[in-house]
Amino acid sequence: MSKKRLLSGMQPTGLLHLGNLVGALENWVRLQDEYEAFYFIADWHSLTTLYDKTEVIRQYTLEVAIDFLAAGLNPDSCAVFVQSDIKEHAELHLLLSMVTPVSWLERVPTYKEKQTSLRPESMSYGLMGYPVLQAADILAYKAGVVPVGKDQLPHLELAREIARRFNYIYGEIFPDCNALMTNYPYVPGTDGRKMSKSYANAIYIADSPQQTVDKIRCMFTDPTKLKRHDKGHREGCSVYEMLDLFGRADLHEDCEAGHVGCLETKERLAGLINEYLEPVRQRRHQLAKDIDYVEDVLAAGAKKARVAVRHTLEEVRQAMGVR
Amino acid sequence: MSKKRLLSGMQPTGLLHLGNLVGALENWVRLQDEYEAFYFIADWHSLTTLYDKTEVIRQYTLEVAIDFLAAGLNPDSCAVFVQSDIKEHAELHLLLSMVTPVSWLERVPTYKEKQTSLRPESMSYGLMGYPVLQAADILAYKAGVVPVGKDQLPHLELAREIARRFNYIYGEIFPDCNALMTNYPYVPGTDGRKMSKSYANAIYIADSPQQTVDKIRCMFTDPTKLKRHDKGHREGCSVYEMLDLFGRADLHEDCEAGHVGCLETKERLAGLINEYLEPVRQRRHQLAKDIDYVEDVLAAGAKKARVAVRHTLEEVRQAMGVR
Repeated sequence: MSKKRLLSGMQPTGLLHLGNLVGALENWVRLQDEYEAFYFIADWHSLTTLYDKTEVIRQYTLEVAIDFLAAGLNPDSCAVFVQSDIKEHAELHLLLSMVTPVSWLERVPTYKEKQTSLRPESMSYGLMGYPVLQAADILAYKAGVVPVGKDQLPHLELAREIARRFNYIYGEIFPDCNALMTNYPYVPGTDGRKMSKSYANAIYIADSPQQTVDKIRCMFTDPTKLKRHDKGHREGCSVYEMLDLFGRADLHEDCEAGHVGCLETKERLAGLINEYLEPVRQRRHQLAKDIDYVEDVLAAGAKKARVAVRHTLEEVRQAMGVR
Repeated sequence: MSKKRLLSGMQPTGLLHLGNLVGALENWVRLQDEYEAFYFIADWHSLTTLYDKTEVIRQYTLEVAIDFLAAGLNPDSCAVFVQSDIKEHAELHLLLSMVTPVSWLERVPTYKEKQTSLRPESMSYGLMGYPVLQAADILAYKAGVVPVGKDQLPHLELAREIARRFNYIYGEIFPDCNALMTNYPYVPGTDGRKMSKSYANAIYIADSPQQTVDKIRCMFTDPTKLKRHDKGHREGCSVYEMLDLFGRADLHEDCEAGHVGCLETKERLAGLINEYLEPVRQRRHQLAKDIDYVEDVLAAGAKKARVAVRHTLEEVRQAMGVR
């Protein structure tokens, strides 16, 4: 009868882009009716790396909420909330920290990578504990399903290990939590690398149609096509990859036949993307004018979340002999 | 006009004994009128080592509260509460974790010691973060004064360093916090080592007078005094040390003169201790019969504590860009 619980979050480290939309948000929208879904803005998580750039977090917490809703998350179907509104995540993080061996955290690939790139004082205790906080996020809701990309699998596996160790010591409280692996499509950025806010190669939901056209115009294409009548190739052409992503590889055929120049194909792509983003952008535009409504949605989401975690926290406190 | 804030806590890892009373609690009682004092039962802290013995924590949280009140803490003068009733400690612990370098925690002497004595899986993330939680305990109240023994100085110093780093990044929020060093008297246990619940050499507030007599009878004394008329020495005699602690070294003189046997001196000591503990034990007896009252005291203490931390947490959240 009751639906399985599903949980996922995103950090408020910037505006959301086409890659987030096609890669994750559309999936979230599909899942919101099938599951009892909790979607949150992981502001505490973003402090693990942006602890000295908190203006970013402050600014984008609300922007990401707007992007969530613009993408189609329906507050009647799911809970949309901000992580730091639910203090129980912090409490459970502390309690789980007592049964999480440091050696497990030292082995996490992303943590090991950061040891080589960050300054020593930025290797914070909180950064090391990122997977413990993530485990708390998931386990507080006894979420049975977590949609993840491949890169997040080690973190989810660690959350499962923490849950198992907790259950071993205190008895069965946490259910097993399964990854909902999605073959997220690869969304290329304008420079040919994966679309990412870190690379300044992203097309944002919040961009205007003209900004989109301008960005696509600068997109990387087949370097062997120098003139309009040269035959273009699919390999190494981000414009082709993006057209293919939208199921319109056919729009690249004129290029391959040497009938059109890159600019024309780019205009076709920009048109396609703008058409695709149009309804999302319209909703975004409306939402951005009604921040009170967005705050109401977040408050209602937080309320749902609090109800959902209350019982778990009571069980955990009881099991650990604390209040 | 307003008094300085003072904060201290004890873990609920067992009943409190004569060493706790003479060493710390009497000091707390003296300080409760001079300062705006917050005294708490650090149940979350005890999970860092007793995570798999939570029955101990559950049992002793209330017993320690009773011992606190029996020793003379006055709920009208100070706040007596349980750490896990104030969830803000966990929230601040998480937030401070973002600015606490792992390397600082790895250098803490008690943590390094435990690395050689504990099994690897018991070296938990929470154990490593003990000083971060302690910093949160102190800083949530902006406590200017923390009464500590010598062994706690490195932890307090770390809390000050965390506060300084926080202030450096986010602006002046936390005041400097000073150790109130007390020359805690050395209280010997019945086996000659320092009195400690870990050594099974303690005389508890909750012991009956007869239990006290029995324990003192087994106390270590000068090993060179074999017979009643041998002259006793002060060196190596725990009974002498204890008499001296109570300012009654004179009761040992008959022993040194060879006039009395160890048993008689022990009876003198037991009488002295029982007399000293009598009013505390009476209060303890009354309190143990009225758990509802004790719970009311803890609820009132928690209320005071929540009021005290609210403003700090608001400032910290604002500074870090989270809710």
